[in-house]
Amino acid sequence: MIEKTENRTVRDVIQIDSELLENISQLIEDQASQSILTILADLHSADIAEIINHLNFDDAIFIFELLNTEIASEVVVELDENLREKLLKEIGTEKITNIIDELETDDATDILSDLPSGVAEHVLDNIDIEDSEEVKELLKYPEDSAGGIMSGDFVFVYDYETVKTAIKTVRFHAEEYEHIYFIYVLDSEERLKGIVSLKSLLVNSLRKRISSVMEEELIYVNPEMDQEAVANIMKKYDLVSVPVVDEKKVMLGRITIDDIVDVIQEEADEDMQKFAGLSEDQESSDSVFRISRIRLPWLLIGLVGELFNVLLLSTYETTIQNIAIAAFFFPLVMAMGGSSGTQASIVMVRSINQSNIWFQQAFIKIGKEFLVSVLNGLTISSILFVITMIFFDNIVFTIILSLSLLCIIIFATILGATIPLLLKKFNVDPAVATGPFVTTMNDIFGLFIYMAFLTIFLLH
Amino acid sequence: MIEKTENRTVRDVIQIDSELLENISQLIEDQASQSILTILADLHSADIAEIINHLNFDDAIFIFELLNTEIASEVVVELDENLREKLLKEIGTEKITNIIDELETDDATDILSDLPSGVAEHVLDNIDIEDSEEVKELLKYPEDSAGGIMSGDFVFVYDYETVKTAIKTVRFHAEEYEHIYFIYVLDSEERLKGIVSLKSLLVNSLRKRISSVMEEELIYVNPEMDQEAVANIMKKYDLVSVPVVDEKKVMLGRITIDDIVDVIQEEADEDMQKFAGLSEDQESSDSVFRISRIRLPWLLIGLVGELFNVLLLSTYETTIQNIAIAAFFFPLVMAMGGSSGTQASIVMVRSINQSNIWFQQAFIKIGKEFLVSVLNGLTISSILFVITMIFFDNIVFTIILSLSLLCIIIFATILGATIPLLLKKFNVDPAVATGPFVTTMNDIFGLFIYMAFLTIFLLH
Repeated sequence: MIEKTENRTVRDVIQIDSELLENISQLIEDQASQSILTILADLHSADIAEIINHLNFDDAIFIFELLNTEIASEVVVELDENLREKLLKEIGTEKITNIIDELETDDATDILSDLPSGVAEHVLDNIDIEDSEEVKELLKYPEDSAGGIMSGDFVFVYDYETVKTAIKTVRFHAEEYEHIYFIYVLDSEERLKGIVSLKSLLVNSLRKRISSVMEEELIYVNPEMDQEAVANIMKKYDLVSVPVVDEKKVMLGRITIDDIVDVIQEEADEDMQKFAGLSEDQESSDSVFRISRIRLPWLLIGLVGELFNVLLLSTYETTIQNIAIAAFFFPLVMAMGGSSGTQASIVMVRSINQSNIWFQQAFIKIGKEFLVSVLNGLTISSILFVITMIFFDNIVFTIILSLSLLCIIIFATILGATIPLLLKKFNVDPAVATGPFVTTMNDIFGLFIYMAFLTIFLLH
Repeated sequence: MIEKTENRTVRDVIQIDSELLENISQLIEDQASQSILTILADLHSADIAEIINHLNFDDAIFIFELLNTEIASEVVVELDENLREKLLKEIGTEKITNIIDELETDDATDILSDLPSGVAEHVLDNIDIEDSEEVKELLKYPEDSAGGIMSGDFVFVYDYETVKTAIKTVRFHAEEYEHIYFIYVLDSEERLKGIVSLKSLLVNSLRKRISSVMEEELIYVNPEMDQEAVANIMKKYDLVSVPVVDEKKVMLGRITIDDIVDVIQEEADEDMQKFAGLSEDQESSDSVFRISRIRLPWLLIGLVGELFNVLLLSTYETTIQNIAIAAFFFPLVMAMGGSSGTQASIVMVRSINQSNIWFQQAFIKIGKEFLVSVLNGLTISSILFVITMIFFDNIVFTIILSLSLLCIIIFATILGATIPLLLKKFNVDPAVATGPFVTTMNDIFGLFIYMAFLTIFLLH
């Protein structure tokens, strides 16, 4: 939140280390509330949140209960989401209401959407009526859409007003919003007409009409737009904030770059998660059982996939018994296929996410991947050929091994590059392809190619 | 660059699709420069850059040569870095000089640092002398430090001046910098004393002293700080810009959030790259040979690692020949170890990168990982036990298989969690641990555990 009232900044960046944490834990044990408050008074709300994130749950509640409503409202938006959810369950509905009453509407909406519906209703009935209406509006939009991350708190003037009245409007809101960089210009039907920077207000004559100093050509987004698309637009055009308008161009809210910074981080984390085969975001306050639950699903999917491999290999039992040396190379064959496939799929997922993918260009990209895989496949296979000949001195086996490795690298690369495109085509997040999914498929196909080659050429 | 002069914005977000690209390619073939310029005139510089990024190299040069210096300078900062480097090699030194003369000093520094030293010197000798001095200053800092990404272009006033003179200063710079949100307050020795928002200038009386309206408690960074650390600070404290000062607090420059957005994206991409085993960033304009060169190093490292596996397994030849069924489970054993290890290492790398790691807490984290691995290991092993018993009906082998899988999952998880910590301790980027490195180590240790168990309990 850029336009948030924030009275507390810090003189220098504070290093929150284990010493400080231990001090605080000790003070909590001693119930030395006053000393704790003295320490916290010097800290930025983001630092207090970081401390709470790293304490055990009971200590976290103790500290949070100590904070007055204003500080608590600044801290609560910075907490780890899971911890916040758990923590608010322990806090009385009255205190939650007071805290949420202090928040900007977009933050209030975020937090309300995670509360039990009974508590949420109580909060909505008891906070400022105007805010309550606005929050109800915001709750309609999906959490990860432009509507879900926008704030309804913005400064606006009508297009027939003057620079002078605009400055008055800024003064009027000066207390409420600490950070104001732009004011939006609306027509009498609340439709967005333009934007004026505070700099323009300072530079232009007071009597000028707002409509003559505003910037008319501006980028806006619709509330339905996915937050990642909003992030891409703001990144591409270097925007500090972007207005959200409905289909009639009626101004609904605005999204600021600091919210987008969180989105970019979130999306990057999500890609990482999918990559790692984690079903959800893992936070440092999570319990062992939760972490296990986050990680098990993909392990189980991997297990099922690899059981097919057991089945596959068991049908080649004769081949393995006759050529035990073949089994020595299973890990190598799998790893090379897996790495090539992962490289291709990650590059493809990134290029899909970063710009609109053009399906005509997709074929060019896959063609490139094919050439790369031939090049790298030949290099790796040739090296393997030489080494295997030296160590095992079995020309027929060595040829089959090298040839199948070449095929596997080519196949895995094409598979890794194609699956993200297919997923995108069917509107599934392509990042799923970077995880254990493609790796498992590559294991199966890779070993199949290898065993089939061996069986056909060596046994028959 | 927030404070860049940017005359061209767009009415709505433009979809750059293959149709537009084909049109432009056709027009280039027809040498219809005027028609191309008409199309480009409606586009934002970021869109022109995106088009150029997706054209073949000759067409890219053709378009870039068409642009006038002002537009070219806006486009050049948005281009893919590799393409930009190649493109500037084809452009005359004179034109490069004119383009760089138009840029803000931080962008100028970025581009200059990639130019051949002869060209760079010519540019430095021929651009505005003040900018040239500043760029030379900026070139001293590493590219990924606060000094390397800061800009020397900021608006400042002295603390003895008044609100009125501050407004005059803003007006004076209004043409030069389109976006001004803050002005910095310095004392007579150029030391940073505080910050004033444009809002404060609008709200306060003209006669007030700047020192009485400025915000004194503010966060600053030093030029040596790593850009990722700067990003973490700006994210944490929701800053739109942060001043960079030297050890005497003399103001050197400022970093704006839009530059940090790029850093966050860059760092996320870098993690992804390491994850995928890519030695460098791959861009869509890269040639097949470059892509191959980017991908080969980790494939080769993987190959060497897996050759140890071949060696390892060959020492267990008798075991494999006697129990061919053992080989069927190689892929499963490797995949389960690999996935568990990857999950642990990615979570650990993320938590190291996101906050200062506290080594006391590190043991708690590894302890948690141990418990998670026991839980997940028991689950996976039990399932495997039941399935293997059903299909192969060999109780001794099934027990050994399940037991070794449990050990492997625990071992791989601890290894995956510990290596990033060790790397951090020795000041190596922990993200290296997420790549093929840990996977290969897990393959080797996993198979060793499995084969050792089998050999000890089944053969003897």
